[in-house]
Amino acid sequence: MLFAVKMDVDIPAGLDPDVRADLVAREKAYCQELQKSGVWRHIWRHVGRYANLSVFDVESNDALHDVLWRLPLFPYMRIDVTPLAQHPSDLAAQEV
Amino acid sequence: MLFAVKMDVDIPAGLDPDVRADLVAREKAYCQELQKSGVWRHIWRHVGRYANLSVFDVESNDALHDVLWRLPLFPYMRIDVTPLAQHPSDLAAQEV
Amino acid sequence: MLFAVKMDVDIPAGLDPDVRADLVAREKAYCQELQKSGVWRHIWRHVGRYANLSVFDVESNDALHDVLWRLPLFPYMRIDVTPLAQHPSDLAAQEV
Amino acid sequence: MLFAVKMDVDIPAGLDPDVRADLVAREKAYCQELQKSGVWRHIWRHVGRYANLSVFDVESNDALHDVLWRLPLFPYMRIDVTPLAQHPSDLAAQEV
Amino acid sequence: MLFAVKMDVDIPAGLDPDVRADLVAREKAYCQELQKSGVWRHIWRHVGRYANLSVFDVESNDALHDVLWRLPLFPYMRIDVTPLAQHPSDLAAQEV
Amino acid sequence: MLFAVKMDVDIPAGLDPDVRADLVAREKAYCQELQKSGVWRHIWRHVGRYANLSVFDVESNDALHDVLWRLPLFPYMRIDVTPLAQHPSDLAAQEV
Amino acid sequence: MLFAVKMDVDIPAGLDPDVRADLVAREKAYCQELQKSGVWRHIWRHVGRYANLSVFDVESNDALHDVLWRLPLFPYMRIDVTPLAQHPSDLAAQEV
Amino acid sequence: MLFAVKMDVDIPAGLDPDVRADLVAREKAYCQELQKSGVWRHIWRHVGRYANLSVFDVESNDALHDVLWRLPLFPYMRIDVTPLAQHPSDLAAQEV
Amino acid sequence: MLFAVKMDVDIPAGLDPDVRADLVAREKAYCQELQKSGVWRHIWRHVGRYANLSVFDVESNDALHDVLWRLPLFPYMRIDVTPLAQHPSDLAAQEV
Amino acid sequence: MLFAVKMDVDIPAGLDPDVRADLVAREKAYCQELQKSGVWRHIWRHVGRYANLSVFDVESNDALHDVLWRLPLFPYMRIDVTPLAQHPSDLAAQEV
Repeated sequence: MLFAVKMDVDIPAGLDPDVRADLVAREKAYCQELQKSGVWRHIWRHVGRYANLSVFDVESNDALHDVLWRLPLFPYMRIDVTPLAQHPSDLAAQEV
Repeated sequence: MLFAVKMDVDIPAGLDPDVRADLVAREKAYCQELQKSGVWRHIWRHVGRYANLSVFDVESNDALHDVLWRLPLFPYMRIDVTPLAQHPSDLAAQEV
Repeated sequence: MLFAVKMDVDIPAGLDPDVRADLVAREKAYCQELQKSGVWRHIWRHVGRYANLSVFDVESNDALHDVLWRLPLFPYMRIDVTPLAQHPSDLAAQEV
Repeated sequence: MLFAVKMDVDIPAGLDPDVRADLVAREKAYCQELQKSGVWRHIWRHVGRYANLSVFDVESNDALHDVLWRLPLFPYMRIDVTPLAQHPSDLAAQEV
Repeated sequence: MLFAVKMDVDIPAGLDPDVRADLVAREKAYCQELQKSGVWRHIWRHVGRYANLSVFDVESNDALHDVLWRLPLFPYMRIDVTPLAQHPSDLAAQEV
Repeated sequence: MLFAVKMDVDIPAGLDPDVRADLVAREKAYCQELQKSGVWRHIWRHVGRYANLSVFDVESNDALHDVLWRLPLFPYMRIDVTPLAQHPSDLAAQEV
Repeated sequence: MLFAVKMDVDIPAGLDPDVRADLVAREKAYCQELQKSGVWRHIWRHVGRYANLSVFDVESNDALHDVLWRLPLFPYMRIDVTPLAQHPSDLAAQEV
Repeated sequence: MLFAVKMDVDIPAGLDPDVRADLVAREKAYCQELQKSGVWRHIWRHVGRYANLSVFDVESNDALHDVLWRLPLFPYMRIDVTPLAQHPSDLAAQEV
Repeated sequence: MLFAVKMDVDIPAGLDPDVRADLVAREKAYCQELQKSGVWRHIWRHVGRYANLSVFDVESNDALHDVLWRLPLFPYMRIDVTPLAQHPSDLAAQEV
Repeated sequence: MLFAVKMDVDIPAGLDPDVRADLVAREKAYCQELQKSGVWRHIWRHVGRYANLSVFDVESNDALHDVLWRLPLFPYMRIDVTPLAQHPSDLAAQEV
């Protein structure tokens, strides 16, 4: 089940640089682990912003919330979730 | 080069049903032709809306505008375009 | 899997009264059928508006879109969907 | 009498962790006590947000304000209240 | 129980003048009847707009919705409802 | 001459508790004094918010600004002012 | 007593040209009559819009509403009113 | 003197095709004449929209309004004007 | 050449009182100097806000930006600029 | 390939003046270097704001993001990017 997820990051300028570096490194590791498991299907940078547009593939709403809540940068993000369905013109879906 | 494209469709209720059916059929054919050529990379339905979230892969801004402008439903859509860049955490991109 | 769904209805004043009455009757029948099957879990009127706040219980995003798309009043509605997850303080959920 | 209540929580990052933990614990206890008394009828997590959508059942506007004002996290919340009425298609209401 | 109610009126220019005159006359009669019964406590014109700010005194959310839904101009209005509670600094309330 | 005034209060969490208590006490005293003099005609709590909806009766725009500017909580408020006129359906006004 | 008034005009394209010309001529005559009487103190065109920014000098809110309500183009305008007070730095005001 | 001008075009679907074609042809001719005279310095298409972002070079606000007001498509446009000044980092400006 | 300029002031509560008093005094002196030179033609207080609506008369966009940029309170303001043109109904303009 | 880029700068008042001066100097140097290389084609000041409207000419979305991300003031900016295409009425484009 797919969801579009937009994440806008806003880390306070005053955050300790080591804390910040650690957060960003853990965010990247967590993101790549979820890519490997097939949950985080796409991630693109929104040009000119500290933001991304992503697509998640999860079992349920609860699974999605659980994944997002554990993002290391969650406290510094605004997240918008859009549930996606198969589009009737989508060739890839019809091949399944 | 990737762009996220959000299309919200609003066909007037008073449109002749045959005209409408023809428009929708041509939209679908055009969409699937662009999927086959690799330009229209993803298309998902926004749940609960007559709308889609898509990802296009084009050579340039001019190419994208040309493709969108020729959508049969263009006069009945509101389109929002977001340029996308490779995200530093994206595993797929690093494999290239 | 639960979703909050907000529906704002805007039927054009010029619609033929019989067409309108038929639409509204079919909407009500469809709504009650979905209540009986357990899909449409709650429906409340938004005070002072031709609008409702509802909660749906479905298997997937695709199932939700399918249900909403077939609403007789769909062409006259603006629909906002919010995916819901279990809240850690929810007693009812813990009893399950 | 029912009200939809949306609560968006924004606890400052700099708040003392013990103070924060105490606030969150008291919020949970208060929430569950109100569930037991039948006032806080539903609570769902808004996926991807530190936010909830709830339904309250109270005697009056004054009773609702009193309940919300005493939320331990009230100073850190933005709250939106929507009064709800019985919907004419609601089967549950007709059974009463 | 008090509610602030904002009504913005937008009658289509093309409406038959007699129909319009009849609607406006019935709206006024209905409004004054509710003032006499104590339900419609205040009504003020929003300067420069075809709009009013009103205060209603009703038994419940259902009663308020019932009153508003039967406004002759309801189909041509956008209505915003704000539930009001007694303010701790209000002298009039303390006198009760 | 009447004005609807909406006041949203946002006192910083870090403000010294004594300073805060003093501000709030002075705000209440000032508010009640203006009620006694007939200037602050109504004050209602906006349910679920640290906010009020009020109606002021003043001689002029300058008089209103002067009254609002001297609110002890003015630096912590966002204020929206709507000028009100007599509504042609208002029975109370016609009695004068 | 001064008010800033912003008027955005939106005359439907389908309006009969003679009706439109008559409305516009009456609007201009009414506007100039109010300028001569000192009520409509300033009128400026908002560059690139069918809109104006004006300043009115009236006795009361009721007087302002009465003047605006009788604008021939009132049914085709959106009007925003901002009450103005004397600014403490205004030299012209201090000379009075 | 430079101004950024954003034009969003919305021609009603029901407009007579010949009238529309004539309007669009006159708009193009007018636009190119103003380019030749140096007034319309830049015009770019906003990708995915029937809209443009332009830069005008005029003597005054009155001159700009006069040019925009005479656009054949003016009645079908929403226009936003932003006055521009020389930027202190602009090399081209410093060369003058 | 005239411009409407709206200034919303937001001085941080934590600013040193002497620094603040000095800023406000310099703002007033600067404002009055510009009134005397005919550049700052009107200044009105927006009732209930720490804000003003002003009209400036300058030679060019660059001149206006230069004047605004040097406002002592510029770093604490949000400024909105609207270019104004002569209105065809303006009697004062026709007298020139 | 052209993009309109709007940059709104908001440097915290509390930033060390030397750090600020260094950031601003590096921003200017970086900006001018990109002008010389033909990437930053236009930069204009938005009158009355600490903001600019710019036009960039780059090979790709990735190139644009890379350039923007390395702006010394990036952490203190809000950036909005609009992809531009050649306009069919643009004479300059036709000359190429």
